[in-house]
Amino acid sequence: MDDIQQYLEQHREAFEDDLCDLLRIPSVSADSRHRDDLRQAANWVFGQFKSLGLAAELVETAGHPIVYAESPPVDGVPTVLVYGHYDVQPPDPLDEWISPPFEPTKRDGNVYARGATDDKGQMLTHVKSVQAVLATAGKLPIQIKYLIEGEEEVGSANIEPFLESRREQLACDVIVISDTSQFGPGRPAITYGLRGIAYYELRLTGPKQDLHSGTFGGAVTNPLNTMAKMLAALVDNNGRIQIPGFYGDVVELTDAEREQFAALSFNEASFMKQIGVGGVSGEAGFTTLERRWARPTCDVHGFWGGYSGEGAKTVLPCRAGAKFSFRLVPNQDPKKIGESLEQMLRSLCPPGIKLELIDLHGAPGVLVPLDNPFMSAAAKAIERGFGTAPVFIREGGSIPIVNAFAEKLGADTLLLGWGLDDDNTHSPNEKFCLADFHRGIKASAALWDELGKLGA
Amino acid sequence: MDDIQQYLEQHREAFEDDLCDLLRIPSVSADSRHRDDLRQAANWVFGQFKSLGLAAELVETAGHPIVYAESPPVDGVPTVLVYGHYDVQPPDPLDEWISPPFEPTKRDGNVYARGATDDKGQMLTHVKSVQAVLATAGKLPIQIKYLIEGEEEVGSANIEPFLESRREQLACDVIVISDTSQFGPGRPAITYGLRGIAYYELRLTGPKQDLHSGTFGGAVTNPLNTMAKMLAALVDNNGRIQIPGFYGDVVELTDAEREQFAALSFNEASFMKQIGVGGVSGEAGFTTLERRWARPTCDVHGFWGGYSGEGAKTVLPCRAGAKFSFRLVPNQDPKKIGESLEQMLRSLCPPGIKLELIDLHGAPGVLVPLDNPFMSAAAKAIERGFGTAPVFIREGGSIPIVNAFAEKLGADTLLLGWGLDDDNTHSPNEKFCLADFHRGIKASAALWDELGKLGA
Repeated sequence: MDDIQQYLEQHREAFEDDLCDLLRIPSVSADSRHRDDLRQAANWVFGQFKSLGLAAELVETAGHPIVYAESPPVDGVPTVLVYGHYDVQPPDPLDEWISPPFEPTKRDGNVYARGATDDKGQMLTHVKSVQAVLATAGKLPIQIKYLIEGEEEVGSANIEPFLESRREQLACDVIVISDTSQFGPGRPAITYGLRGIAYYELRLTGPKQDLHSGTFGGAVTNPLNTMAKMLAALVDNNGRIQIPGFYGDVVELTDAEREQFAALSFNEASFMKQIGVGGVSGEAGFTTLERRWARPTCDVHGFWGGYSGEGAKTVLPCRAGAKFSFRLVPNQDPKKIGESLEQMLRSLCPPGIKLELIDLHGAPGVLVPLDNPFMSAAAKAIERGFGTAPVFIREGGSIPIVNAFAEKLGADTLLLGWGLDDDNTHSPNEKFCLADFHRGIKASAALWDELGKLGA
Repeated sequence: MDDIQQYLEQHREAFEDDLCDLLRIPSVSADSRHRDDLRQAANWVFGQFKSLGLAAELVETAGHPIVYAESPPVDGVPTVLVYGHYDVQPPDPLDEWISPPFEPTKRDGNVYARGATDDKGQMLTHVKSVQAVLATAGKLPIQIKYLIEGEEEVGSANIEPFLESRREQLACDVIVISDTSQFGPGRPAITYGLRGIAYYELRLTGPKQDLHSGTFGGAVTNPLNTMAKMLAALVDNNGRIQIPGFYGDVVELTDAEREQFAALSFNEASFMKQIGVGGVSGEAGFTTLERRWARPTCDVHGFWGGYSGEGAKTVLPCRAGAKFSFRLVPNQDPKKIGESLEQMLRSLCPPGIKLELIDLHGAPGVLVPLDNPFMSAAAKAIERGFGTAPVFIREGGSIPIVNAFAEKLGADTLLLGWGLDDDNTHSPNEKFCLADFHRGIKASAALWDELGKLGA
């Protein structure tokens, strides 16, 4: 690996120049005026693969093109699929940018530009690492496939049909995505768990029209009172969700995981300051990190009904609505939970109220086994790239593409985030730490090496 | 009284003509384009009093004029103040009227027009009764004062200052208002109780901005979940309000009242059909009529917060709001209840949530003692006018003017409703039963006679 190390050192500037070239293309997928810019970015990525001598294809979709590429098969070792995206979020509000969003500017060891960390910079580490390996070793130790899309920021509508129609071509043993963050500066992380989700809308209907609360109040069931009762009944005062059987399939945190989370020395005071609250709460018996990453939740996202204008209106409203979801942890089944939820709500439904529960979407949680050999390979690679062993973290959100990969390709995903929490993703002054860019390239090259040491 | 009876019979048509004259004036107080019509209606009423030889005054206000009139004082007997209003609700939607709203039309024994029952027709009964007494007896047995305003349908903003500035002139022993309904056709009623109200807006604030429910959910207190918990905590599953001390001052229904309500043979099936519900609910141990008329309630009038658009948005919103009120029964004190409520809500407020409770308005309930001599006089008068004894009912709503009279003038109000539940008050095709118009005039004339038999 000394040759590679030397190559990486010698090409730091060239890699940064390439990154800046890509960052200059305003590939804002949400804005149709940028349609040509999307194609230009796709072609730029396609060009990278061609110049590396990979078999590459610009795949047309109903939206923006997908760039697909692959290196030659290598027998007896795993095949990797790298996923990334070349599209970016809109740059608004423009006047809050210190330097223009599509004029990449280096300051304090960072490059500032829309897409710097999300995901152009992170994605490119896995291209530049291959460039380095090919330039020094002449060939790759494993087969690498690339799936780089242009619609991640607008919902990835065309990815599932693509996965469906190309199952064989995309066959792989593990998937690599760098589109998340380290735990903190100098604290690289592997995200091995994601929460799932079960999202519902509840609609309650009472009398056929709004009534006067003086004339009818007290005798006619009020849909708003009922909605409050139902939502309140979902969680007890210890933060435990009350749907029968809800916790039946939960994969509990192991003692080792809890120790490991605790060892991360998460600073709760800074966390509270960051979000502007004087206190936190949640499921009794768990820490804030455990609650965020590895415990199921119930959050109401919106409710509406009746009068919300100025002053007092004495209406007994005829309907109420609410949206709420449960974040799920591995192995909870959104479908099973939805059925139990509906049964529970119907049992709580008082006379005079009609109930409609709409299942808006569901996805199971994700948990990549820590004793997975790919995980160990990734940990070693990160240590080689960053000079420090990664911490293993989970994340509270859901990344739908990971579920899609598991479902369509039957492969686990390694979430190897080179970003930082303060990278201003989706906000003005997005940045990517250039040292992390280079460490990411080095870790990526080490990953191909480590995976090559594994049997298929 | 035979003379009066004869006079009333002979003047049926003339009285109806007068009513129709007044109904032709489109005195819509909510619509500034009708400003001149309001003045015309006020002048019409003023003209009636002048033609009866009463001392009458058109009182200018910041809004529409008040018509004040009074007959000469009579020693040793009670003085009555009649309250009514000459303004009407807007007639929209116009295309649902069978005959135009300001072209009074007689069909099936009713007169159809905006304001027929609310309140032109009912108010006029107390003018025509005086006309009959003066024409036949030459003088009134008691002093009658009239306060007829033009802003009842828009909140009576100028009445309280008027009461305040004219306390002495308005001094009286009892107030008479005919602006409510009989219990049913042929079932005249005296409303002897009204509920009060204590109306609040609750605002909860959590984090300084909306957060991602995946990243933060489960650890950060959600204002919407909290709002649901708080609203749900206000009432238990037996419909009992949980504010400490809430029931302490409640005047319980007497056995006699409960028997009397039960004897009204209220038809619950028709009630449910009328409002379009398959069942009713409320405080355990009470009937629907008791719940509507004489038990305190808690109704949520509106709530809002978070996302209510299409589809799923995984937001943990930073704030939530709700409006809710308690209907109070006599002797509950809105102020005391507000203080206890705030204490309760603060004790329920979890870490990370800021709470603001806004007192929007409050008014105590009203209960006119049934053994009051004015009540007996009114009951006898109604029996003389309608040929059947009235039932004694309460009403669930609040009529703020009644509280204002009690507070400013220290007098109880007799609510003698000549209308019917199906009069389409505030709706298209408002009507007033002409037989009830004439029975109301007769009952009113009898009321002056009965009150004249009482000592001052």
